[in-house]
Amino acid sequence: MDYPPDAFARACASRVVLDRIGDRWTVLIVVALADGPLRFSQLREKIEGITPKVLTQTLRALERDGVLTRTVFAQVPPRVDYELTELGRDLLAPIDAIRVWAEQHAARIVTNRERYDEAADQLL
Amino acid sequence: MDYPPDAFARACASRVVLDRIGDRWTVLIVVALADGPLRFSQLREKIEGITPKVLTQTLRALERDGVLTRTVFAQVPPRVDYELTELGRDLLAPIDAIRVWAEQHAARIVTNRERYDEAADQLL
Repeated sequence: MDYPPDAFARACASRVVLDRIGDRWTVLIVVALADGPLRFSQLREKIEGITPKVLTQTLRALERDGVLTRTVFAQVPPRVDYELTELGRDLLAPIDAIRVWAEQHAARIVTNRERYDEAADQLL
Repeated sequence: MDYPPDAFARACASRVVLDRIGDRWTVLIVVALADGPLRFSQLREKIEGITPKVLTQTLRALERDGVLTRTVFAQVPPRVDYELTELGRDLLAPIDAIRVWAEQHAARIVTNRERYDEAADQLL
């Protein structure tokens, strides 16, 4: 008998998927591809601070998951495009909502952390 | 001059926030608290496989961020409730959309990974 997926259940595959989506670079790559395919160099330029190694690894993991496709064009120099699949497009709305929340509340969260640490210091 | 927050920018605080939200345990704790406050033991029961240590650490990090509050009731035995703040409630919709996506597509993603690995094996 099949059970419906339940992320609260220990063995549910959705937990592994959560880990992949949760990665900060995954969020930024998926959002970067929202408007259409990009090349490696364009992604690297758009996502400040990502190393070529981490970009390569994250793109490969997302290709493996079926979230994006990698298309090689036989030209000189060779051109490689990365593009969201339908599965990746489905992910775009919730993942972009997370990014917006993070951007909107980042300053407040940093303040919260400082206050929390100050209060903790006074208990020492 | 202040710039609007931009998760694509290297120094943006929203990146640190993304890391916190991205954690699988954060997702499950925030969703678990959707219907109201819970005690430590109730959270531990609901989120299968979480260790007491990781639950304690993640709750503390979320309290520090201002996503949830910790209320101690002076009774015997002492009772401690965890409850989402307004900031935490704002996070609920996007974070739950991520969980739903993960649950809906987990099986397909596992299949995608198997196919990808088989294809890679044939290239060896």
